[in-house]
Amino acid sequence: MAIDMKLVHDPIHGGIELDEFAVKLVDTPEFQKLRRITQLGLAFLVYPSARHTRFEHSLGTYHLARLVSTRNPEIEEGVVYAALLHDLGHYPFSHTLEALYPKHEENTRWLIKHGGIGDILEENFSLREFEGLLKNPLVSGDIDADRMDYLVRDAYYTGVAYGIVDLERLVRNLCWDGKRLILLEKGIMAGQNLLLARSMMYPTVYQHHTARIAGTMLVKAVELEGIPLEEIRFMDEVDLVAGLRMSEKPEVRELIKAIDERKLYKHVFLSGEDPGEEAIEELRLELEAEFGHLVLVDYPPKPKFEERNAFVLVEGEVKRLSDVSPLVRALANVGESYWRWGVYAREDVKEEVQDALEKLL
Amino acid sequence: MAIDMKLVHDPIHGGIELDEFAVKLVDTPEFQKLRRITQLGLAFLVYPSARHTRFEHSLGTYHLARLVSTRNPEIEEGVVYAALLHDLGHYPFSHTLEALYPKHEENTRWLIKHGGIGDILEENFSLREFEGLLKNPLVSGDIDADRMDYLVRDAYYTGVAYGIVDLERLVRNLCWDGKRLILLEKGIMAGQNLLLARSMMYPTVYQHHTARIAGTMLVKAVELEGIPLEEIRFMDEVDLVAGLRMSEKPEVRELIKAIDERKLYKHVFLSGEDPGEEAIEELRLELEAEFGHLVLVDYPPKPKFEERNAFVLVEGEVKRLSDVSPLVRALANVGESYWRWGVYAREDVKEEVQDALEKLL
Amino acid sequence: MAIDMKLVHDPIHGGIELDEFAVKLVDTPEFQKLRRITQLGLAFLVYPSARHTRFEHSLGTYHLARLVSTRNPEIEEGVVYAALLHDLGHYPFSHTLEALYPKHEENTRWLIKHGGIGDILEENFSLREFEGLLKNPLVSGDIDADRMDYLVRDAYYTGVAYGIVDLERLVRNLCWDGKRLILLEKGIMAGQNLLLARSMMYPTVYQHHTARIAGTMLVKAVELEGIPLEEIRFMDEVDLVAGLRMSEKPEVRELIKAIDERKLYKHVFLSGEDPGEEAIEELRLELEAEFGHLVLVDYPPKPKFEERNAFVLVEGEVKRLSDVSPLVRALANVGESYWRWGVYAREDVKEEVQDALEKLL
Amino acid sequence: MAIDMKLVHDPIHGGIELDEFAVKLVDTPEFQKLRRITQLGLAFLVYPSARHTRFEHSLGTYHLARLVSTRNPEIEEGVVYAALLHDLGHYPFSHTLEALYPKHEENTRWLIKHGGIGDILEENFSLREFEGLLKNPLVSGDIDADRMDYLVRDAYYTGVAYGIVDLERLVRNLCWDGKRLILLEKGIMAGQNLLLARSMMYPTVYQHHTARIAGTMLVKAVELEGIPLEEIRFMDEVDLVAGLRMSEKPEVRELIKAIDERKLYKHVFLSGEDPGEEAIEELRLELEAEFGHLVLVDYPPKPKFEERNAFVLVEGEVKRLSDVSPLVRALANVGESYWRWGVYAREDVKEEVQDALEKLL
Repeated sequence: MAIDMKLVHDPIHGGIELDEFAVKLVDTPEFQKLRRITQLGLAFLVYPSARHTRFEHSLGTYHLARLVSTRNPEIEEGVVYAALLHDLGHYPFSHTLEALYPKHEENTRWLIKHGGIGDILEENFSLREFEGLLKNPLVSGDIDADRMDYLVRDAYYTGVAYGIVDLERLVRNLCWDGKRLILLEKGIMAGQNLLLARSMMYPTVYQHHTARIAGTMLVKAVELEGIPLEEIRFMDEVDLVAGLRMSEKPEVRELIKAIDERKLYKHVFLSGEDPGEEAIEELRLELEAEFGHLVLVDYPPKPKFEERNAFVLVEGEVKRLSDVSPLVRALANVGESYWRWGVYAREDVKEEVQDALEKLL
Repeated sequence: MAIDMKLVHDPIHGGIELDEFAVKLVDTPEFQKLRRITQLGLAFLVYPSARHTRFEHSLGTYHLARLVSTRNPEIEEGVVYAALLHDLGHYPFSHTLEALYPKHEENTRWLIKHGGIGDILEENFSLREFEGLLKNPLVSGDIDADRMDYLVRDAYYTGVAYGIVDLERLVRNLCWDGKRLILLEKGIMAGQNLLLARSMMYPTVYQHHTARIAGTMLVKAVELEGIPLEEIRFMDEVDLVAGLRMSEKPEVRELIKAIDERKLYKHVFLSGEDPGEEAIEELRLELEAEFGHLVLVDYPPKPKFEERNAFVLVEGEVKRLSDVSPLVRALANVGESYWRWGVYAREDVKEEVQDALEKLL
Repeated sequence: MAIDMKLVHDPIHGGIELDEFAVKLVDTPEFQKLRRITQLGLAFLVYPSARHTRFEHSLGTYHLARLVSTRNPEIEEGVVYAALLHDLGHYPFSHTLEALYPKHEENTRWLIKHGGIGDILEENFSLREFEGLLKNPLVSGDIDADRMDYLVRDAYYTGVAYGIVDLERLVRNLCWDGKRLILLEKGIMAGQNLLLARSMMYPTVYQHHTARIAGTMLVKAVELEGIPLEEIRFMDEVDLVAGLRMSEKPEVRELIKAIDERKLYKHVFLSGEDPGEEAIEELRLELEAEFGHLVLVDYPPKPKFEERNAFVLVEGEVKRLSDVSPLVRALANVGESYWRWGVYAREDVKEEVQDALEKLL
Repeated sequence: MAIDMKLVHDPIHGGIELDEFAVKLVDTPEFQKLRRITQLGLAFLVYPSARHTRFEHSLGTYHLARLVSTRNPEIEEGVVYAALLHDLGHYPFSHTLEALYPKHEENTRWLIKHGGIGDILEENFSLREFEGLLKNPLVSGDIDADRMDYLVRDAYYTGVAYGIVDLERLVRNLCWDGKRLILLEKGIMAGQNLLLARSMMYPTVYQHHTARIAGTMLVKAVELEGIPLEEIRFMDEVDLVAGLRMSEKPEVRELIKAIDERKLYKHVFLSGEDPGEEAIEELRLELEAEFGHLVLVDYPPKPKFEERNAFVLVEGEVKRLSDVSPLVRALANVGESYWRWGVYAREDVKEEVQDALEKLL
């Protein structure tokens, strides 16, 4: 990599300048692996152009964190490297497999402690210290470098306009008060826009119902294959897909082939009313007893859009963004309205599943 | 796929509408495989965001061909499906492996004749007829739907501005005269711009020297592995990369690992002067005898930018674009000036190779 | 104009195609005058690049109306011409002077009845009929061609991202049911986004506090000059500005010079609490008695963002958008929160005005 | 203006930061007048959206000059203010009236010497010194901040793609060697692209044949009106248009009315062959003797696109861009090929003029 990678070209931010230590981190196998972890998982089955990866997103997050840090020199220097590495622990197809394994944030911390990248970090930080940096509001807050990058990037690659956010106004107006990022008055609208954008990208892209079907199929394949955490945490998408294609279990091979060829299961049922986890588990058991892997019950966690810690400065006073914006306040009611659970089935058994389901519900 | 895929969202063209027959073709394993063939091969090692695939490009080419066809109803109807399938034969990492196998156009024709997609085509065309459609100027001419899509798309995904082309003016001014596409006067500048854009994207993106190193490494790995044509023509990038990672030959495993981790070979020598193929072959043999796979000689074909069949209508007369545009004429001299051959070596033997090379040259 | 204007180039929509009758309407002095009516009034004093005019916006509105109409052939044919002419009655600097004269919609109707453009319209419509077309939901509804064009256009020219709206999804999903435009399910998010965008553009651009000062200064100048309605309705910005510069009243000349040179009055007071119209009028009289034209009281109407007639189709049922979207519902509370009234004064008397105001409030 | 104008929003560059001295210069009547000088003259009659002004362009040029200067601290500090003021001397409708008056560069120098803005400049510079800064290659060279801004800006406002230029690569690779700006190797393609872009914008936008007709009409109106240089140099477009509308000469009023209402003269003759200035003058006299202001002969100066002083660094050696780029070399032959002279006439006498012309030629 060396010299010529110090400036990385990116269609979102133009030139991203990496300092020497960032180059060292980027030059590790762990970080290069992110090139083979799709940013939006299986969303490319709906938005074919959404092929960007955690690699670019991580560089972009670093870039934005650096811009904010440069304007706020009191922010701890290491935060930009935390921004760079915040997604290191993503599994193949990003959030998809978090249904089976610990959240990627936990895996990020594990990889930092156990991988070669930790040795590099220890040249400048204690690992305990670095773990703290990962929680800095600039890396994981309501209005942070992570969200700023992914909303704009995901909008760019999907062509869905809702994610467009005024990065420059945010960067210019984010102010560090020693423990919090505070948005100055001229940036409030841009901050509100970011939270609204996120809520609109959710049903349109992040939880698009077709991508959810494909994701649920993949989860089932991985579950059937029984890949242990110690393996999946080192895998990229080549490892995973090739492994599933060569599985000894015909169901697993069938599922990955169906994803590869976009022969997706069909909706049998979709509902915004939550019967409770217990009822769902019961249903799942009954359906699987009858149909095996040909039926899938998808019960995703409920999204939360309300802002909890977005601070703004209004007429000299620090307030929560939700206190000054009726629209941000309204986000508290939005999550519920987008949530759906569903039952999916292979096309040829769709009707039988429908019949069975009607008896069960 | 069915109904919901009839409209595909694309950041370049907005909504791409697929007719029923196009959906049928897209719904084949052969076409879905294109989702796993990167449009720009290993260029993502230089432009990390260049992760788009032949799948989107093929849809975009179909879309543009359809726009031009709709304005020129005398164009044979099947041309849009030829536009859709024109890249079906690309190997993993697109043009990279054409150094070892027949050109992808030949493989496209083979797959159409031997794959399931041919059966679908035969519902409407004889395969011989369809082969002819692939040569239509709207699919493979100097100013065609293929170039129109890829220049704009590659510019969008790399962030390199040079590829931007005025698609609307081209579409509005391309006119079919029964056997040729002719550019009306108001589209001449846009046509010139397309040819210039292509010439500028070549050294900046398509033949970026770093991407060439990675490509040459991949070619060597595949050559050492000895993958027969009958296998590679069905492979996607998952198959190829997983296969190389699991190779029995340590050199192959080493090479793919180096690409995966972006530990690329270094330039030892780079020159625009052509010593001739024979001299190169001799050099390659001598260097390989001493350094094996640790040294690579890269002798790419010379690019051609001159226009051969771009026709324009000027004051009622059909002329060649090169007859009316001094800039297009000048393209004839550009290819040579961008061409380079080179010697690359693994970093640790770079100096030894340099010494050996000095003796040989 | 004739032939070469049938295709108009526009950075927002690409090529705008005008049919023969539209060309006739565009070719009138009344319509050409719109080239000299700035779309955003004096906002260019804050966003210098916001120099676009009602002319382009009118063409864009026609274009979008035509796209929706083509997909919904039952929409009355004349609606596209109503879209073209809907802003014909704007005074110089658009909405600014509506504080002194009838709303521009009324002036549009007057000009159509009394100008030469009416004669052209009568070739195809009765004027009474045409007045009805101006009220069609595609021209003046909650989600109409007018808003679709101006939000995207104003965002483009100011560089403020909030106005970006997914025009294609709206066009594809607007459906005419005989008397209403109804948004299909796949367009609901885009419709919500449009209403949110409008609410965010309001304080950021349309009612930016500095532009309001300039606007209030202009209103005062025109009021002092005493231009009658019969004159202003025919004026473009050249007429108005040149007229004010040559006024016999020194206060008028001073005010227009200050606007020309951007020496704007300063805020003395700004408040979101409404003391009622009567109290404001009293205050205005007292301040003007003491300071004449050196003090200005700005009491704008309160903005309304709630949707009243945006219909959507959800699971086969027509509902109001506000019934399905908590965010759209929340817009009802937003208008109030952005509203401000203010007192402005020439810089050299700012403190005296402040003192006087303190006594009065 | 004061504090809130220190950051100016611009759709091309995002936020433009003005330092205190720049704010002082911008806050003068001379500079504010640029808000009323259209960047592209009468091109808005062809590209209706091209309403941007010399004001935004001047701020953008300042911005780019500052970016390059910051990376090259040895560049004289005052150059950024020369960039800001380089277009101060433009007459109404920019280049159009340079057919009658000294070039705008000369007028810029005159205004600096004789206007209030000179007094401000003298706080920091001698005026002689400042005149020198106006000739700095960063302000008026082959690849300078002026061209960089106007190409991108004009492309943005017209929607014509050809002007798009990679500003970031240029800024990053322009290097000051004490007396010249030199483009580093990684910027050469971007520099070539800028020169090509300029040559393509010329016939498409800057010298569009319809805009030339309107411009020639305006020149004739001003010539007939006989406005002395001492007046025109202080005029903005409001002054000029209002003045012509109120002219005592009916021909002048007729001409400006025709421009206002876009009732443009028609082409009678258009040719790329140059009969020489003398022959043209004779023709003009004969035609004017017969048709007066109803006929116009347009004999524009020939454009020059060849690069004269664009330096690049190739393998450690400074060369001219034309030495390394065949395309830039070809630009020398392009100017001639775009040049046309023409005869235009009011529509009702077009045929008579045609007859007369046939006898004369």
